[in-house]
Amino acid sequence: MQFHHHGYVSTDPRVQPAAGIGLNRSAELPDEMDVLIVGTGPAGMIAAAQLSMFPNINTRIIERRASRLEIGQADGIQARSVETFQAFGFARQLINEAYWITEMAFWKPDPENPENIIRTAQPKDDPTGISEFPHLIVNQARILDYFAEYMKMSPTRMEPDFGYEFLDLTIDRSQEYPVEARLRYTAGPNEGQERTVRAKYVIGCDGARSGVRRAIGRKLEGDQANHAWGVMDVLANTDFPDIRLKCAIQSHEGGNILLIPREGGHLFRMYVDLGVVTEEQSKTIRQTTIDEIIARANKIIAPYTLDVKNVAWHSVYEVGHRLTDKFDDLPNDSTDDETPRVFITGDACHTHSAKAGQGMNVSMQDGWNIAWKLGNVLSGRSSERLLNTYSRERQVIAKNLIDFDKEWSTLMATRPEDLPDPQYLEEFYVKTAEFPAGFMTEYTESMITGTKEHQELASGFPVGKRFHSARAVRRGDANPLEIGHQHTADGRWRIYVFADDATQTDETSKLNAWAKWFKEDATSPLNQFTPADGDEDAIFDTKVIYQQPHLEIEVTSAPKAFVPQCGPFKLDVLENVYAALPEDDIFEKRGISRSGAVVVVRPDQYVSGVFSLEDTAGLTAFFEGALAK
Amino acid sequence: MQFHHHGYVSTDPRVQPAAGIGLNRSAELPDEMDVLIVGTGPAGMIAAAQLSMFPNINTRIIERRASRLEIGQADGIQARSVETFQAFGFARQLINEAYWITEMAFWKPDPENPENIIRTAQPKDDPTGISEFPHLIVNQARILDYFAEYMKMSPTRMEPDFGYEFLDLTIDRSQEYPVEARLRYTAGPNEGQERTVRAKYVIGCDGARSGVRRAIGRKLEGDQANHAWGVMDVLANTDFPDIRLKCAIQSHEGGNILLIPREGGHLFRMYVDLGVVTEEQSKTIRQTTIDEIIARANKIIAPYTLDVKNVAWHSVYEVGHRLTDKFDDLPNDSTDDETPRVFITGDACHTHSAKAGQGMNVSMQDGWNIAWKLGNVLSGRSSERLLNTYSRERQVIAKNLIDFDKEWSTLMATRPEDLPDPQYLEEFYVKTAEFPAGFMTEYTESMITGTKEHQELASGFPVGKRFHSARAVRRGDANPLEIGHQHTADGRWRIYVFADDATQTDETSKLNAWAKWFKEDATSPLNQFTPADGDEDAIFDTKVIYQQPHLEIEVTSAPKAFVPQCGPFKLDVLENVYAALPEDDIFEKRGISRSGAVVVVRPDQYVSGVFSLEDTAGLTAFFEGALAK
Ligand SMILES: Cc1cc2nc3c(=O)[nH]c(=O)nc-3n(C[C@H](O)[C@H](O)[C@H](O)COP(=O)(O)OP(=O)(O)OC[C@H]3O[C@@H](n4cnc5c(N)ncnc54)[C@H](O)[C@@H]3O)c2cc1C
Ligand SMILES: Cc1cc2nc3c(=O)[nH]c(=O)nc-3n(C[C@H](O)[C@H](O)[C@H](O)COP(=O)(O)OP(=O)(O)OC[C@H]3O[C@@H](n4cnc5c(N)ncnc54)[C@H](O)[C@@H]3O)c2cc1C
Repeated sequence: MQFHHHGYVSTDPRVQPAAGIGLNRSAELPDEMDVLIVGTGPAGMIAAAQLSMFPNINTRIIERRASRLEIGQADGIQARSVETFQAFGFARQLINEAYWITEMAFWKPDPENPENIIRTAQPKDDPTGISEFPHLIVNQARILDYFAEYMKMSPTRMEPDFGYEFLDLTIDRSQEYPVEARLRYTAGPNEGQERTVRAKYVIGCDGARSGVRRAIGRKLEGDQANHAWGVMDVLANTDFPDIRLKCAIQSHEGGNILLIPREGGHLFRMYVDLGVVTEEQSKTIRQTTIDEIIARANKIIAPYTLDVKNVAWHSVYEVGHRLTDKFDDLPNDSTDDETPRVFITGDACHTHSAKAGQGMNVSMQDGWNIAWKLGNVLSGRSSERLLNTYSRERQVIAKNLIDFDKEWSTLMATRPEDLPDPQYLEEFYVKTAEFPAGFMTEYTESMITGTKEHQELASGFPVGKRFHSARAVRRGDANPLEIGHQHTADGRWRIYVFADDATQTDETSKLNAWAKWFKEDATSPLNQFTPADGDEDAIFDTKVIYQQPHLEIEVTSAPKAFVPQCGPFKLDVLENVYAALPEDDIFEKRGISRSGAVVVVRPDQYVSGVFSLEDTAGLTAFFEGALAK
Repeated sequence: MQFHHHGYVSTDPRVQPAAGIGLNRSAELPDEMDVLIVGTGPAGMIAAAQLSMFPNINTRIIERRASRLEIGQADGIQARSVETFQAFGFARQLINEAYWITEMAFWKPDPENPENIIRTAQPKDDPTGISEFPHLIVNQARILDYFAEYMKMSPTRMEPDFGYEFLDLTIDRSQEYPVEARLRYTAGPNEGQERTVRAKYVIGCDGARSGVRRAIGRKLEGDQANHAWGVMDVLANTDFPDIRLKCAIQSHEGGNILLIPREGGHLFRMYVDLGVVTEEQSKTIRQTTIDEIIARANKIIAPYTLDVKNVAWHSVYEVGHRLTDKFDDLPNDSTDDETPRVFITGDACHTHSAKAGQGMNVSMQDGWNIAWKLGNVLSGRSSERLLNTYSRERQVIAKNLIDFDKEWSTLMATRPEDLPDPQYLEEFYVKTAEFPAGFMTEYTESMITGTKEHQELASGFPVGKRFHSARAVRRGDANPLEIGHQHTADGRWRIYVFADDATQTDETSKLNAWAKWFKEDATSPLNQFTPADGDEDAIFDTKVIYQQPHLEIEVTSAPKAFVPQCGPFKLDVLENVYAALPEDDIFEKRGISRSGAVVVVRPDQYVSGVFSLEDTAGLTAFFEGALAK
């Protein structure tokens, strides 16, 4: 964490100096704003949190409820989401309070006595070490709280505007604020009254029954019927031995349960399968009482019993696999010359079964994706064409996810005797671990994702996938660190420059030639795109990683390209010079060429491209595309 | 973290349900209270934080200043202190924001060109892995903030009472509130006015010029003269390569510097040695300006230069090695029948050079020591005689520390050519690492520290030293955890029961016999000392650690002694059953006998005793001593 560089910070250093909008933010929802976000679910809150980091963008987030979410809804946090929270500064705190999934148990009917369940397997949750972060469970409300805290500490001091319901919108592209949205007060003195506001862009994060989706004429298509679950968050005593483990429990006749232990050591959630329900059956199923859910759970876990002492929350959650064909307001056959004004994210454009625990996670990646792009466009760093990449990138991810989810939830609902072989379910779970952990996303070529032409220079950083952090030692303070954890959600691009194997002071090294070009050449990305009045690292956070042990290099011998000056005192930033750890060599671990490589990472942590140190033209061309005005 | 067990917690789970005093805490300082703490430095704040966890003890902490500390003073945080913060729930957050010392550099005059300094060594800070926690640097103000946050979230909702200066006190042992303290308002509408309050006990945490110390007639004795340092917290650019490393810099003629990089990536502190000053010289030395300090620093680091851009804080800090002979109000030759009413802690009873970075750390261990004891006595768990152990334990620690500190600071002030050999300083630093890291404390036999008679049953948990955490897997959720980190500052005793090597369900195992005795025998500590109306684990947090891999045991097969019920719903606590990790076996690592062992740990994390599983009489005898009414 970098602080004190604008002067001494005596209190919580996470609170950033107010700037731009934050100096004089209106408590009331204004009539005009740059971005209007509808809905404070995970998708909306991450979008707001990301945009809150752009001091000059006026973003507001409205919510129909009168106050924060208190209980219920989703609770599964993939490792990819925890990586994301690291960028928003709250991963550690969340890990402290969440339930941590390290293993998962599978229970099935005892073949000798099918009335009783027995444990058949207990594999590790992340056998391949796919992330340095854990897989967590915590109530959605807490995630929203952490984002709220983040945006409040941001330069813009953003807070949600509770008590406004979105009704509909119209778009008039000839106006400076093309989108007019009609809202209704749902709380406070004006309750029931309507008002209109105007925005340059609207992000619909308003969930499965999205009004924004309706307003732009899109539809969720897919399953005819919903799958229904009796969900309960309860405190109970039981003789079931795995009540503190995530379990898939299949009974012989009584149905099945997904058991999710929860934060705090006592609470747990059970999803009791209520089967597929047509629209007509839905009304009846929704009347399933908590007593019925508990009775059913007891039947499924026989010979064990559940003595429920307290019900924190329960619900009948009905959901199907559905998807919209496009995530913005443009026609399906629009060209790059047209650019969208309204976007939909999360449950508003895709829904899936509760079983794979995807909803909150994928929704957040949607929100982050559109938000950093709007941040770049509205702060003048990129052309509006960037906004077309949102739907193109995220729609296909949602489609893949739904396909996977269908397979997974069908499997879980299949009786063991009907599976190809007894271990089928566990094996599928382990084999496909990358998917539910959130790491299968792989963006294809676009203005922000380059080709795989030079992938062999850094085979462990696949272009289009998330930058997989690895450790290196920061020379200035000799701290061994996860280099990827230094990537915070500040909207900047990362350029990781892996040095060739010359000595540090060899003037003829490829690294030194690259650095000289980057810092001095008028056409280099640094000089083309860094605003004259900003910090030297305002757009590009550029780090060098040497191959030598750290005691063979000096931070003061690193090229100036890696020692930008920042803040009002023009202080040298001494945190961008790294060396490989001999015992955990990032070059080895991520397959980096000993001739060096340049790895470019987008503001949302996905790898944009791999370049050789000599290919400065390629790097320039990439950024001229991505940051085109 | 255990929560939700009193019902669902929707917001920050660190906020505990209000109870006792916290249900109706008076905003104004009352006339009578159980404990009055004077001074909100590190010693006072940790004492208050610990006492805030006892719902029925009315503790107040007063401070002369009108508000929180903002800047300056100490900044070195030993690993032992970070362990301590873990117990108070803020280690992770602090680690996130603090500077992390991994290596230290030594600079000396270049033998070939003594006007210039050169780096002569850069050893690791903790070469032996003495703690799983890091050695940190962060401003004292932040530590105080974290304790303030903790006490505010505690059941008693405690907050410091700012704006009261302690003047003096008298003791009348015949009264219910024997100590009468005279105070003066230093802020607010009553500024300048005096008032008296009464307390059962007073803890003087009022620093080196302690008024409480004066009031009980004790004196700091030791050095005749002080050592003076020009201290500055600054932002600067420099060509000195190690400005982000802790450095001991000795110049040929210009003196020496201790360089402490600080949190946030830019700020650093320099202690510029101003030499030993008599009382007469003190006035002059105190007029040393910041410009003089900067000039001197520049001279010492030649050929490098320092371009200071901003001064956050500076001071001339004068201190000597001094100690009082006793840390309470009783005569030196008092017997156990008399018990103290007033205690002094931290700088009020011992001062040391800034060089070893001890002040804040040792002061916190003082504060914690007296606070949990007062908590135990005032809540009726222990006899008042426990309070005599405070001075007995802590005075000798302070003495040892001062002896060490003298040696260290003399060495650092010695010109390299006068040392026995060139590597002497570095070698001393590495050899004695346990001391400055805070782990040399070893309490001797007393009513709360047993004998070393059975030490061989758990050789890695030396009786009298801090419980050195190790990892084990919690059976219920299969989480591999640092077992010591589950020890929070709740005032409870820990009993770690290491099983013998029988199978879990073997009724004749020593472990099962022990557990049956502990749970069922009327004379066992559990049955003798647990209040009838409290949780089963109100006094003893008892954990079992099995030798087998976790999949060979079940939490539901563990004896009931390890599954207490808690909270209003009498929920089973499923977090006390552990298994050794095959790849990191706690039995191996801490030298635990394969026949089992019982390790008792005090509320402040020091090992009280090691017992065999058969020696239930020994365990009972120990607790009858420690918890005697
Ligand atoms: C009642 C409920 C129960 C759920 N239970 C589970 C579960 O058990 N397991 C699981 O995995 N997932 C569950 N989910 C789904 C999971 O919460 C979502 O997948 C996830 O939250 C998607 O995030 P989102 O931001 O896209 O939408 P949501 O979290 O649905 O957020 C949408 C937000 O927009 C607000 N909003 C909606 N319409 C308007 C409007 N017109 N004007 C203003 N604000 C509006 C809503 O109040 C809400 O705050 C549940 C969802 C709901 C709504
Ligand atoms: C100005 C100053 C600078 C320091 N600089 C350094 C340094 O550079 N490096 C270093 O290692 N250590 C330094 N220290 C020492 C270090 O801060 C202490 O070792 C450490 O804080 C000891 O903690 P403590 O709680 O015992 O006392 P302190 O932190 O000194 O706290 C005592 C508290 O009691 C309050 N107080 C005092 N008298 C009264 C009264 N009569 N009534 C009410 N309240 C009262 C004080 O305002 C203060 O808040 C410095 C201390 C001071 C005071």
